[in-house]
Amino acid sequence: MSFDFFNPVKIHFGTDSLKDAGKIAKKYGTHALIVTGKSSMQKSGVLDKLVKILKDEGINSIVFSDITPNPTIDEIDAAAKLAKEKNIDLIIGLGGGSPLDSSKAIAVAAKGNIPVWDYLKIQPKGALPIITIVSTSGTGSEVNRFSVMTNTKTGEKPGFGYECMYPKEAIIDPVIMQSMPKYVTATTGFDVFVHVLEAYTGKISNPIADSYCEKAFALLRESFIAACNEPENIKARSDMAIASALAGLAIDSAGVGIIHALEHPVSGNFPNIAHGAGLAALIIASMELNIKDKTCREKYAKVAHIFGNIKGNKTEEDMAYELIETVKKILSDVGLNAKLKDLGVSEDKLEKISKEAFTTMNFAVLNNPVVLGEKEALELLKDSF
Amino acid sequence: MSFDFFNPVKIHFGTDSLKDAGKIAKKYGTHALIVTGKSSMQKSGVLDKLVKILKDEGINSIVFSDITPNPTIDEIDAAAKLAKEKNIDLIIGLGGGSPLDSSKAIAVAAKGNIPVWDYLKIQPKGALPIITIVSTSGTGSEVNRFSVMTNTKTGEKPGFGYECMYPKEAIIDPVIMQSMPKYVTATTGFDVFVHVLEAYTGKISNPIADSYCEKAFALLRESFIAACNEPENIKARSDMAIASALAGLAIDSAGVGIIHALEHPVSGNFPNIAHGAGLAALIIASMELNIKDKTCREKYAKVAHIFGNIKGNKTEEDMAYELIETVKKILSDVGLNAKLKDLGVSEDKLEKISKEAFTTMNFAVLNNPVVLGEKEALELLKDSF
Repeated sequence: MSFDFFNPVKIHFGTDSLKDAGKIAKKYGTHALIVTGKSSMQKSGVLDKLVKILKDEGINSIVFSDITPNPTIDEIDAAAKLAKEKNIDLIIGLGGGSPLDSSKAIAVAAKGNIPVWDYLKIQPKGALPIITIVSTSGTGSEVNRFSVMTNTKTGEKPGFGYECMYPKEAIIDPVIMQSMPKYVTATTGFDVFVHVLEAYTGKISNPIADSYCEKAFALLRESFIAACNEPENIKARSDMAIASALAGLAIDSAGVGIIHALEHPVSGNFPNIAHGAGLAALIIASMELNIKDKTCREKYAKVAHIFGNIKGNKTEEDMAYELIETVKKILSDVGLNAKLKDLGVSEDKLEKISKEAFTTMNFAVLNNPVVLGEKEALELLKDSF
Repeated sequence: MSFDFFNPVKIHFGTDSLKDAGKIAKKYGTHALIVTGKSSMQKSGVLDKLVKILKDEGINSIVFSDITPNPTIDEIDAAAKLAKEKNIDLIIGLGGGSPLDSSKAIAVAAKGNIPVWDYLKIQPKGALPIITIVSTSGTGSEVNRFSVMTNTKTGEKPGFGYECMYPKEAIIDPVIMQSMPKYVTATTGFDVFVHVLEAYTGKISNPIADSYCEKAFALLRESFIAACNEPENIKARSDMAIASALAGLAIDSAGVGIIHALEHPVSGNFPNIAHGAGLAALIIASMELNIKDKTCREKYAKVAHIFGNIKGNKTEEDMAYELIETVKKILSDVGLNAKLKDLGVSEDKLEKISKEAFTTMNFAVLNNPVVLGEKEALELLKDSF
């Protein structure tokens, strides 16, 4: 066994830790671009609060609030252009996975001279310093280097990440998460589950990432349903926020697998589909495929144990299959039972989607426990349709 | 709950990963000072191998091999002087906790103009880049910012650590550990156990550090005894090397407690005592004290569970007490049953030792689950005598 491990993000977790954003930000710059979505951070008042906190520490900020749920390269390039015009020296991502992912891509594009899409192939020279303030529990983007963006012309939705894209510091304040609607809590929380399931069973899994995964599974078992049903439950919100960070750290080192590889082109081609809903539609068929791999099966059995399934006289294989039943129950409990067609995917796009998994998310395909080609990927999509 | 978390060390784990030392080192400098002890890395041939690996990548190195098991400030200041004279631009720590701790202190002193002891009170301006290559499984020093040094005039043995003291990269090669003698494997391995026990139950424990601790406990259960009894068992050596790193990461964020606070002055005043042997002498009385704290008791019960104690109808308190029995069994299995007097501590020094815990390791005293003053600390030493 051999592995490398690295994550340089300074994490600040705590109730009302948003108040420290000014002190943290001024270590890095005086002219901040706040990258956020169109409405939720405005409605909750968090955006105004952040602008004031920054101002109190002498930081001028301007707001770019055109980030859509599946951020496009046009949005990112527009924000990078604005950052250059305004001599921005610091990017602050505020919100869920979309603005946080975008903040990293913008930080790269604002430092360079080429469209952001080109950085899929060209290593950037650097990035503006990035701070993340996360409002959902799911993305993990707050603590890792990854960014996902959509090319609206082609429907491609690749993930990418370079060392310069690590946020300098991440603020995780569970109070901000209390305003998350139930469906967002469910879909983003399910993203946490799939992150740790895929990192834990992936080919490049390693013991340090495993430690994050095992803890995140325990927190998910304890608090995922409660966070969905009791939005103000700060203990459940905190647990999910920590699980999200642990999962973000885990995938930073151990990657994702076929579920993510297929979901990206699903929501890339159908941008109204929430990422977590797409994952939910794909997970059962993917687990039924991966359970054929012995190492994966052993890990599934361990996860089943963490989720409270009693071993007794059962074989490891029994335990692994029990995990699939556990996952079905979770999907039912949090209301994520929709198949791909229920989500609006059209059948004639399945072949395009299966191909794009290999062209835009091949690192995730390669990390999947079971080796698969386009044919098997298409089968998996059909099973999930 | 609130916590901060940060660790920027690049970890390279793997069989024969020593071979990558040159490629890694040349990112940071061309004139390396290798800091090591007087004999084991010479005898095993690892030192010669490292010098050649560095040379092959164009890095000149000189060796400072005067580091003793409890490194003194004189050794550190002498090495720093040498580093300045030779225009060293990179410090490589090679060996167990002593050379690795020293490499960080030397990196600070070589960059500054005052004796290393003064940095206990004065924040350093920076440090030369540090690379660690660890030969034991215990210290955790390979992946964190801490350094421990002894003032031979006073017997004081404080720990200290600044952000500039993080190693840039850490090479963890379990093959190097196969040459560790049984007693070293036992004492350093027990240090791992105490690191995670104290980080897990400390006042500033947090869920990210907890995830490391839980994984490390599982690896210790699996492989500590085997590593002691079967030196060539590469699986056991790997597990212990990973447990050591996880424990090093855990204490970096969550600190240690009274066992470490008292052990430092023990081996500070009696430099022939191995750190792990001192910890072993102190652990039972310390656990019997800390078990009175409810939160600590709950955590002890969880550790007992990880070590395979079956809950059944037992209360949490029963489970917590079972952990003490488990620890006694481990001590017996690895041959670390000596009390302080068996190790050579003289009774008339107990009062000095208890006082020094508060003057040199107060951060660890403050992190202990149960609040205690000098009187209680002295009682604890007497119980361990």
